[in-house]
Amino acid sequence: MRRPTIGVFDSGFGGLTVLKALLEILPAADYLYFGDTARLPYGSKSAETVARYAVEAARFLEDQGAQILVIACNTATALALERIVLAAHVPVIGVVEPGAEATALASANKKAVVVGTEATVASHAYYKALLSRGVTTHEKACPLLVPLVEEGWIEHPVTEQVARIYLGEAFSDGFEDADVLLLGCTHYPLLKPLFQKTAPAHVKIVDSAESTAHMVAAAFENYKSEPMTESLAERRGQPRFKFFATDSVEKFKKLGPRFLGHPIPDVQHVDLKE
Amino acid sequence: MRRPTIGVFDSGFGGLTVLKALLEILPAADYLYFGDTARLPYGSKSAETVARYAVEAARFLEDQGAQILVIACNTATALALERIVLAAHVPVIGVVEPGAEATALASANKKAVVVGTEATVASHAYYKALLSRGVTTHEKACPLLVPLVEEGWIEHPVTEQVARIYLGEAFSDGFEDADVLLLGCTHYPLLKPLFQKTAPAHVKIVDSAESTAHMVAAAFENYKSEPMTESLAERRGQPRFKFFATDSVEKFKKLGPRFLGHPIPDVQHVDLKE
Repeated sequence: MRRPTIGVFDSGFGGLTVLKALLEILPAADYLYFGDTARLPYGSKSAETVARYAVEAARFLEDQGAQILVIACNTATALALERIVLAAHVPVIGVVEPGAEATALASANKKAVVVGTEATVASHAYYKALLSRGVTTHEKACPLLVPLVEEGWIEHPVTEQVARIYLGEAFSDGFEDADVLLLGCTHYPLLKPLFQKTAPAHVKIVDSAESTAHMVAAAFENYKSEPMTESLAERRGQPRFKFFATDSVEKFKKLGPRFLGHPIPDVQHVDLKE
Repeated sequence: MRRPTIGVFDSGFGGLTVLKALLEILPAADYLYFGDTARLPYGSKSAETVARYAVEAARFLEDQGAQILVIACNTATALALERIVLAAHVPVIGVVEPGAEATALASANKKAVVVGTEATVASHAYYKALLSRGVTTHEKACPLLVPLVEEGWIEHPVTEQVARIYLGEAFSDGFEDADVLLLGCTHYPLLKPLFQKTAPAHVKIVDSAESTAHMVAAAFENYKSEPMTESLAERRGQPRFKFFATDSVEKFKKLGPRFLGHPIPDVQHVDLKE
């Protein structure tokens, strides 16, 4: 089987945390990453607008040769997954179902808290996905966390104070004993140490990015299960990347590595307007 | 002279602080307000992208009958004013020149601090406009303040802490004795009480929104200087508004009044893609 070509789509940089998780599981693949940075953030936009943008991005990645599309954006998944699936000609995996599945498995008392952007929370996508798995959920919008991560205040006292306020409100109203905190935004894995510090001690943290990477890997199970001889490993080789952004490529090269965990040498500018 | 029709453009809601200032000086006018909410924030986007968006918005307002265009967005003014002026067929007033002019008048020791978004600061538009007036400027990007205002944390301890950190960095490196703080973002007038509290005691605060409203009013000096008889006042009457937004009108109706200071009964959705 040939190396798979995996298209990863996000409104900006956050989806790079999903790409990072994918690289750990499926290193020998071609990755196309599309960040719609000219139109981010999606988190405060309406369903109609997000769906239109997301379908355009999905078409672009398919045109570039993606054999599978990973919607590495909670807002786009929550608001537009169905429309992307309808518009696409290849399999589409969003971040909500994998995150919900991992949460249902991790929760002993079937009570969870989900944190995410305004739009993700307003869509109740996680609430519904978890309810169908027997888990009741308290959803909490945390609109300040993305700007704090992008400011680089990852382990900053202000960010800790903001997280404490948000989590204090989230683990309340009968959800004091919720035992899972689901990170429903791809920026939040960077704040994992801070969430561990500020969430109640009994809480397990589930990261949608990781759960999604595992589901994508499962789609390539046959590929992975081929016996990995030395010559096969050599033929497959290292991951290859193409990065596309709708806004400044300089900014992408500067901010992206914070999420991906290694340098991004080259980014192509794309204009989806035409 | 007939009632003037004034087009006000911003990436979102912030420009409503400029409209608010205009209403106090020129109440008897027709106002067209365009908020490009589907593509906000402009503050983190490149000059190319911002210019393209701003020119589209300017054309829309002209088509709607605007006799003058107010670019009530610091980022759009800083990055795209020249291109908007070239594309427009009516006078265009941005927020940078009025803000710089008021700052130069207010500063005794010709040293000022400007706070704004990343893109406004990176453009150095205020720096240049103030330098040509003999004022040296320390520019400080404050990317967390817009999200804090939009979260509604106007007089919140977290916002105060963030303002203290930003202003501490701004009034440093030889700018400890700067005597004017120029609010170079239309969201910031809502934080004026907090800036007053956190800026050094000797500092005067200049608000670009107010300065811009005065410059627009000056363009209609003839109109204003007609003797205001009772029948003229009646004929001219109250302000009339049309609000346009590229994203959710519901969100605009909900958030807008926080900036404008009174309710927004009706907003028309506009799609600039076509």
